Amino acid sequence: MRILYAGFGNVAREMTRIFSRPDLYQNLRFQPSVVGIFTGRHGGIADDGGIDAVRVSQNLANFGALAENKSDLSNVSTLEAIQTLDYDVLVELTSLSIEKKGEPAASHIRAALSRGKSVVSANKGPVAFHYRELKALADANGALYLFESAVMDGAPVFNFVQRCMKGARVTGFAGILNGTTNFILSYMEQGGTFEDGVKKAQEAGIAEADPSLDVDGWDAAAKVAALANVLMDADITPLDVDRCGISGVTPQDAQAALAENKRLKLICRGWVDNGTIRTKVGVEAVDRDDVFALISHFGSAVRFESDLMHPNVIVQDCPDLLDTAYGVIEDLLTVRAASHSV
Amino acid sequence: MRILYAGFGNVAREMTRIFSRPDLYQNLRFQPSVVGIFTGRHGGIADDGGIDAVRVSQNLANFGALAENKSDLSNVSTLEAIQTLDYDVLVELTSLSIEKKGEPAASHIRAALSRGKSVVSANKGPVAFHYRELKALADANGALYLFESAVMDGAPVFNFVQRCMKGARVTGFAGILNGTTNFILSYMEQGGTFEDGVKKAQEAGIAEADPSLDVDGWDAAAKVAALANVLMDADITPLDVDRCGISGVTPQDAQAALAENKRLKLICRGWVDNGTIRTKVGVEAVDRDDVFALISHFGSAVRFESDLMHPNVIVQDCPDLLDTAYGVIEDLLTVRAASHSV
Repeated sequence: MRILYAGFGNVAREMTRIFSRPDLYQNLRFQPSVVGIFTGRHGGIADDGGIDAVRVSQNLANFGALAENKSDLSNVSTLEAIQTLDYDVLVELTSLSIEKKGEPAASHIRAALSRGKSVVSANKGPVAFHYRELKALADANGALYLFESAVMDGAPVFNFVQRCMKGARVTGFAGILNGTTNFILSYMEQGGTFEDGVKKAQEAGIAEADPSLDVDGWDAAAKVAALANVLMDADITPLDVDRCGISGVTPQDAQAALAENKRLKLICRGWVDNGTIRTKVGVEAVDRDDVFALISHFGSAVRFESDLMHPNVIVQDCPDLLDTAYGVIEDLLTVRAASHSV
Repeated sequence: MRILYAGFGNVAREMTRIFSRPDLYQNLRFQPSVVGIFTGRHGGIADDGGIDAVRVSQNLANFGALAENKSDLSNVSTLEAIQTLDYDVLVELTSLSIEKKGEPAASHIRAALSRGKSVVSANKGPVAFHYRELKALADANGALYLFESAVMDGAPVFNFVQRCMKGARVTGFAGILNGTTNFILSYMEQGGTFEDGVKKAQEAGIAEADPSLDVDGWDAAAKVAALANVLMDADITPLDVDRCGISGVTPQDAQAALAENKRLKLICRGWVDNGTIRTKVGVEAVDRDDVFALISHFGSAVRFESDLMHPNVIVQDCPDLLDTAYGVIEDLLTVRAASHSV
């Protein structure tokens, strides 16, 4: 499999580490060839004969550039590379933009799918803003568009429903889907301030440099829109989600809840109300004997309701980059299996 | 799809109810034709033109027989029916026998697979005692052998790993997998006696008439063997599991644990110890902030550890017959999809 990276940040570098350690991951047996690495900040490199991605990771770590010599850089843009290079799968790992409604990732994905090339992406923007269009484009061109890592990292969420709940209808979901706000709320329960909580989350490498995507509930709203679009056939965007973040919460609020044997959590919800799909992100006081009350630090969880099963909850205890990277790799394995079967 | 039932108890009757309500389960779109119903206690009926399974359910409820007239009963045994009738899939729903090492279900399954006919089964005995042999037989005959309902009812467990964790290696699991013992332990926490707890579980229709399969940990051990065999490539039987049930636990023990902010739970474990797969069923005092402490009544949960993801937990809140029946139906849909793609 020949892959093209759009975005080569922490997730791509963790994927590179995993692929370089077949001794550690013995069931994986998967060594895709990297024919292009294109980034927003460092330009791009392309090599039809295969790029040494481990070396590119080292270059970025050592001197902040993809290649030793500037002359090795490609003179095409990310979008042009997607439109013209010879590859099998686009690995789209740029980051979420609410303001730009999922761009430039959505355009990257459109360009690849239009050429009949499958896309795997950890970016929740395109699936939150443009799922119906992109899925139709993928189907029309015989390609796959997969994004398991977009919600709850590598923990199976989309795949859980689509692969393991065949014939059932999802009637609702609820979850804790944003690690940063969950960390900050837990921190305030211990008496820390909101501002210090944000700082600690940033130090842990989890919060965005601009934390408003997290604390204002935009990241959570994008995940809610993605789940509703894919699993409940909604056709909404993050802007349609009834959204309230955590910036109004004080340490006193968090501690008062704790004193009543409850915990404040940023809860994401999707449900059907008289035939209409409703969605919401907001702070709720959760009982201590609810599984959501156990989610501390950067953990996450989702509960699915359906017509043919009583509720199932999936808990992801302590995700980090390994999980996100594995989610993307699992998608790549799905593409590989599908192309073998054709 | 033409199905043959071996066993027609509560699960088969719940499947029959689900199939008869396409108005309720609109995404299911699945109406298999029933060509045979064979039971241990009531004999069997066969009809190449299709049996009215709703009517058979009513007959069993109303006068304890499959058919209105004794002359309508088949004169062949369950095994002979499996060996000779014309069907696509055997639905094996007989109950677990530890003493008989998974028989007669294992022989039923062998007979169907040998004919190239796929098998779906909620019986954990054959997968716990004979997985490697039956899987090889299925593969050699181009058939499927599926058993999602055997552990945690319809909640995806085998499918979770096999369909959603491709390339990863399961390195261990832990879970609460037996509803009856979980109910009894919860009951004793409230001061009830062991004997009354057993009686209450029987009244709820969950415990076996002979509760020793539950309280001595045999049901749990069969589930542990099934998980270890299928997901960790072990080759063990329930007899190999280091097993201790709950009959030594007193209400005082359960309440003493509660006083220390812990709960007594019958925990199932599989792990790798120096290259060897080890398995265990035993009572453990679980911390209140462990997700397992939240599992009350007949709920269940399992935590999977792997090399490519941090632990994931699947919680099944309050399963009943709907879930078990759906698990079997999901397997049937898998068989249907596989035969469509051939």
